[in-house]
Amino acid sequence: MASDSQSKLQLVDKHIGVFPDFPKKGILFRDICPLLKDPAALTASIDLFEEHVKKNYPQVEFIVGLDARGFLFGPLLAQRLGIGFILVRKKGKLPGSTVSVAYELEYGTAEVEIQEDAVAPGQKVLLIDDLLATGGTLFAACELMRKQQAEVLGCMVVIELKELNGKDRLKPHSVFSLVRY
Amino acid sequence: MASDSQSKLQLVDKHIGVFPDFPKKGILFRDICPLLKDPAALTASIDLFEEHVKKNYPQVEFIVGLDARGFLFGPLLAQRLGIGFILVRKKGKLPGSTVSVAYELEYGTAEVEIQEDAVAPGQKVLLIDDLLATGGTLFAACELMRKQQAEVLGCMVVIELKELNGKDRLKPHSVFSLVRY
Repeated sequence: MASDSQSKLQLVDKHIGVFPDFPKKGILFRDICPLLKDPAALTASIDLFEEHVKKNYPQVEFIVGLDARGFLFGPLLAQRLGIGFILVRKKGKLPGSTVSVAYELEYGTAEVEIQEDAVAPGQKVLLIDDLLATGGTLFAACELMRKQQAEVLGCMVVIELKELNGKDRLKPHSVFSLVRY
Repeated sequence: MASDSQSKLQLVDKHIGVFPDFPKKGILFRDICPLLKDPAALTASIDLFEEHVKKNYPQVEFIVGLDARGFLFGPLLAQRLGIGFILVRKKGKLPGSTVSVAYELEYGTAEVEIQEDAVAPGQKVLLIDDLLATGGTLFAACELMRKQQAEVLGCMVVIELKELNGKDRLKPHSVFSLVRY
């Protein structure tokens, strides 16, 4: 990797906060707020995503971002690439005809949703979120794309928590992450 | 207003969807999904915000955006201006020491929250969200800024629903909106 990319990665890494025991005991929470607050670090993160997409997925037609923290990065990347951004929302937030997929939480289930006409069959999309943990939400978002016959080129996150094996869950889709813990 | 700005406003306006009876009967829902999906229209919206800020608030230090749809526009504007972005979240989402303010919903209340060190006394901020209805959430976010002794220069939204008088509720803070219904 070019040293320019290395220094950008270091800048991103330096702006990820860490909080033990949040949202509950035993969880080490990675916080992206410092990254958003520092314009140079945020630019660096989008530079790295852009570089990855241009090199590997020049055919991408839409960036699809997950409610709510995927919204922080997705439109920035989509604007850089000159393409559109599609919202995956928590259930009940989108007007019109929608398609939804349920996924499991620790206790109970939740649902993610897109507008039925958000993507057309065959359209090539990349998914983005801030963090990959168990991969439950991104998996459900991939399922939404599959239901609408869109083609998922891959998934992208700022932070990957390796020990939770979200990457395996999302196979055969690839996951690109900026920083891994 | 310059004709360039007029054509940008028209482009934004053309990409706001409308859905009757959502989320419930009698409500005419304005949908920003088409705006996000069209890269030129999204660029136009950020151009207009940028122009407004540079002309009126060149001293701004941070853009503060509201969970979740303020996240779609805030980082884009902050990057254009070369400044940082601060997250106002729904209660319970932010790690570390936080400050919160409650606001009324139709039934019951909700709370918005920032990290205690998100802004420092005297820092100059502009708030952004997608839509101004009754102004309850933006009012609570302004209260959060006041609690931390930050200086609110003004509020910005893509869409203003005039008949709900959110603008009055937010006084003495000014509200800049791109399109009004």
